[in-house]
Amino acid sequence: MVSHIGLVGLGKMGNNMRERLRRGGIEVTGYDPRPEVSDVASLADLVAALPADRRVVWVMVPAGDPTRGVVQELGTLLGEGDVVVEGGNSHYPEDQARAAELAERGIGYVDVGVSGGVWGLENGYGLMCGGDAGHVRTLMPVFDALRPEGPREEGFVHAGEVGAGHFAKMVHNGIEYGLMQAYAEGYELLEAKDIVTDVHGTMKAWMRGTVVRSWLLDLMVKALEEDPALAAIDDWVDDSGEGRWTVDEAIDNAVPLPVISAALFARFASRQDESPAMKAVAALRQQFGGHAVKPAQ
Amino acid sequence: MVSHIGLVGLGKMGNNMRERLRRGGIEVTGYDPRPEVSDVASLADLVAALPADRRVVWVMVPAGDPTRGVVQELGTLLGEGDVVVEGGNSHYPEDQARAAELAERGIGYVDVGVSGGVWGLENGYGLMCGGDAGHVRTLMPVFDALRPEGPREEGFVHAGEVGAGHFAKMVHNGIEYGLMQAYAEGYELLEAKDIVTDVHGTMKAWMRGTVVRSWLLDLMVKALEEDPALAAIDDWVDDSGEGRWTVDEAIDNAVPLPVISAALFARFASRQDESPAMKAVAALRQQFGGHAVKPAQ
Amino acid sequence: MVSHIGLVGLGKMGNNMRERLRRGGIEVTGYDPRPEVSDVASLADLVAALPADRRVVWVMVPAGDPTRGVVQELGTLLGEGDVVVEGGNSHYPEDQARAAELAERGIGYVDVGVSGGVWGLENGYGLMCGGDAGHVRTLMPVFDALRPEGPREEGFVHAGEVGAGHFAKMVHNGIEYGLMQAYAEGYELLEAKDIVTDVHGTMKAWMRGTVVRSWLLDLMVKALEEDPALAAIDDWVDDSGEGRWTVDEAIDNAVPLPVISAALFARFASRQDESPAMKAVAALRQQFGGHAVKPAQ
Amino acid sequence: MVSHIGLVGLGKMGNNMRERLRRGGIEVTGYDPRPEVSDVASLADLVAALPADRRVVWVMVPAGDPTRGVVQELGTLLGEGDVVVEGGNSHYPEDQARAAELAERGIGYVDVGVSGGVWGLENGYGLMCGGDAGHVRTLMPVFDALRPEGPREEGFVHAGEVGAGHFAKMVHNGIEYGLMQAYAEGYELLEAKDIVTDVHGTMKAWMRGTVVRSWLLDLMVKALEEDPALAAIDDWVDDSGEGRWTVDEAIDNAVPLPVISAALFARFASRQDESPAMKAVAALRQQFGGHAVKPAQ
Repeated sequence: MVSHIGLVGLGKMGNNMRERLRRGGIEVTGYDPRPEVSDVASLADLVAALPADRRVVWVMVPAGDPTRGVVQELGTLLGEGDVVVEGGNSHYPEDQARAAELAERGIGYVDVGVSGGVWGLENGYGLMCGGDAGHVRTLMPVFDALRPEGPREEGFVHAGEVGAGHFAKMVHNGIEYGLMQAYAEGYELLEAKDIVTDVHGTMKAWMRGTVVRSWLLDLMVKALEEDPALAAIDDWVDDSGEGRWTVDEAIDNAVPLPVISAALFARFASRQDESPAMKAVAALRQQFGGHAVKPAQ
Repeated sequence: MVSHIGLVGLGKMGNNMRERLRRGGIEVTGYDPRPEVSDVASLADLVAALPADRRVVWVMVPAGDPTRGVVQELGTLLGEGDVVVEGGNSHYPEDQARAAELAERGIGYVDVGVSGGVWGLENGYGLMCGGDAGHVRTLMPVFDALRPEGPREEGFVHAGEVGAGHFAKMVHNGIEYGLMQAYAEGYELLEAKDIVTDVHGTMKAWMRGTVVRSWLLDLMVKALEEDPALAAIDDWVDDSGEGRWTVDEAIDNAVPLPVISAALFARFASRQDESPAMKAVAALRQQFGGHAVKPAQ
Repeated sequence: MVSHIGLVGLGKMGNNMRERLRRGGIEVTGYDPRPEVSDVASLADLVAALPADRRVVWVMVPAGDPTRGVVQELGTLLGEGDVVVEGGNSHYPEDQARAAELAERGIGYVDVGVSGGVWGLENGYGLMCGGDAGHVRTLMPVFDALRPEGPREEGFVHAGEVGAGHFAKMVHNGIEYGLMQAYAEGYELLEAKDIVTDVHGTMKAWMRGTVVRSWLLDLMVKALEEDPALAAIDDWVDDSGEGRWTVDEAIDNAVPLPVISAALFARFASRQDESPAMKAVAALRQQFGGHAVKPAQ
Repeated sequence: MVSHIGLVGLGKMGNNMRERLRRGGIEVTGYDPRPEVSDVASLADLVAALPADRRVVWVMVPAGDPTRGVVQELGTLLGEGDVVVEGGNSHYPEDQARAAELAERGIGYVDVGVSGGVWGLENGYGLMCGGDAGHVRTLMPVFDALRPEGPREEGFVHAGEVGAGHFAKMVHNGIEYGLMQAYAEGYELLEAKDIVTDVHGTMKAWMRGTVVRSWLLDLMVKALEEDPALAAIDDWVDDSGEGRWTVDEAIDNAVPLPVISAALFARFASRQDESPAMKAVAALRQQFGGHAVKPAQ
């Protein structure tokens, strides 16, 4: 069983996870390019600091090139029987490709989707992992330190083979898009109706006993408590990529996804200064009906 | 058969229709509150000018109160055997209520959905009517003068009982919303892709031989000819109410309407200075993930 | 302050509420047409059993005609200073009309949206009410007995004037549609992917620490526990009417509601033996492309 | 200028195109594995039959592996100055990859999106092409023979660099999905309303003068003429892949596509024997409300 791991990437997430792992009795050697947070000077030093019989390195750096780079370098530093754990937001086909490459050198690969954000340090992190059952078993002390209190299976799952962890996390995030948009639409409708004089109070009253109670609702209430009309916040919403992958995946599998896709498109629209499509609709109305259009501003 | 009718409302639509009717050999007495366009001084004068055996008055004024007012007044001026034709954009339940009221005094009622916009004078108007078969038969010379050249059934229909004409026109307009949005989305996607260097030319090339050719496409090409980047036009799109009725009606009849409703909502969104819903989503993301938000501007 | 109320309607909801009110120290006289559950023989007897200084009758019968009938009869039985509480699922404009009528006779009216379903007896009911502040204040012991444990404002709100309670509940239900559909889409996508070998376990692992944790998620996990492939359940989903009202209301207020409307339309589609629209699309494809269609079965 | 081309693939489309090209005065040597339709015995024979100074081979075989195979073999048979024209439904990134490969051997590549289906032989084909301007110029006699009568630019476009032709065709098809779904939704709503007694006649009356007139509408009317209730046709709708690519592309470019994606998802849903998502929603309703569910059948 693993009791000492390497952790690469000590940003907002990685740093909190190091802390929670240590509180949970796991020894952690952390590496980050920024010396002020790093425990060692290099990836090589990190690998050297780990127990020689089975070195486990958890990677927690931004998806895409950064993750690719770190995993590639670990492929040259680790060997037979060691395990790379990808805890970032990799797209699952990348997991599959990397696992195959590392397997050629006898190195194991486990992908873990991690949910919980800035609240994870205190509440624990929801964990979904994919990979070999033997690897997962060995890593259980690590997972147990990170996951929330309570029954293990309510905060942790071995979802399937390599890639299944990030696939599950991707779907989790797709659902999240849909949930947030549903609350947001309801909020807007409450705001639009003058007979409702206490929108914040109404959503707060949904926190207990109702069908829509959830952690996201709690956060919505908290946001309204801090800023009752959301006056300080712009209606511009980023997307981290996992919503896009979810819809792409649905298309590949012919799964209808009307709600999650609508939530994704609402974010795209929120970031447009002007909508070419709606200019086109306005132009069409002007053409056929002589309908008034607004001149561009 | 009717060869002389009264026409109330000589705005953009009514004026053109009077002209087309006259070109088609129908005698028209027009009334409008604006003396410079009116043929008579009052509704009463209009009614007095019509052939006594069967007076037909076509109402072509804005939906809602204006139409209600004119029809009510006609109810007091007309009598047994006369016919009111509602050619505006009334909501079909209003037709049903008015027809019932007028029937008590022996006055007939025919509702007509009229399509064609500013192009109708030259091209003719698509006509969908509802009401008694006998009334419709008597009105055929009028309908024939208004409808486009070609086979009668390609520009005219007796769709069903009172209300069916405006119901059909409402659905026509709902479809129109969906069609316009489909072209507009395609336009935006073409514009977004740098390998496509001639968006206007691409849509123009769809005018003949393709599956998507249509009159709306022709108008889209015309709009791009006049303003290749739609630079002079704002992305603000009004809605005339019939799209709303279409979705309401679908809900009443449990008919799924994903495309037409999406087109309607896109118009609502186009008119918002800021979206309360998307502010809420941004607030939620900030709460759970510490994600960056844009401060309100 | 009220300590004894009448309760009309002792079905699944009403019966549980009577029980919870009594546990909470409120005296309840219940009336239902079915003598085996009723405390009194008639509405008149119920009114007679209440404290004469201020009689409060909570109505908990199906929306529409049944509620209309009971409220109308109560209007003749109650008088100055009494209060009718409508706890069913009335459409809020009806509340406004009824309140106005009762007010002419000096009778108060409070509308309450009640959430919690079959779980309410044990967990308490989320309550959203609309009406006069004085009435609401008098009713607080009743609301306190019904609502969940914890801070009052997390399970109860005085949302605004008459109608605001049912409006808030309507929006609550609209959100509920969106939330359920979001989870359901995610579930389907997990099921569609073979690398995920434990769908139930994956959703269970979301119960703690994740962004998507909620009561509905807990229920989803429970449903999968009872029937891992949902094999015993049909894909036919009813709608109770409040989702329809939510979308109607959004349309009236020009609020874009892409997610909630998509969830509503998915329910409509789920109930169709065959889709006329998709038959039409198939027919069109056959017409232009000679694409194969399936003959109707 | 080109006056003799090779044409590979003599299926439904290719065969008609050979015929139209010949009627237009272009010499065509066709190859197909089925000897009964082929002019030559092999691809090599086809290449040998073409004018040696500039050999042009138009590929018209199914997208994916078949097209890949033919283009690869042509890469070995053709040489400097020759041109491959890909007229099938390739995904545009494949065009870009193939063009780069062929360019290494001095072979040109033009991608052409072809619209018109089974009607193209008589009406001509809408053509959108991508590639080098010099190549396109040389091919103009071929394009002119294939395209519909009328101004060239209403049935043909050089949309941009390699890939732009198939990109434009992909967007064309995405729009087509949206248009078809819009008509289909309107059709269903008309069918659902009993006051409309002539649905076929109503849609037929839209053929002239209305805003929604189009070729697809003409086909809809034709379909209803042949089968007034679409009784012989199933509500099962296939998708050819280009709708999926359109939505994928929108996601990559952050373009909101609510209508086209809704049309795509409606097709996915139409092919499901049962919907796992709607089973999940039914299960949730049963869990929280004790709502009746239908047992699976």
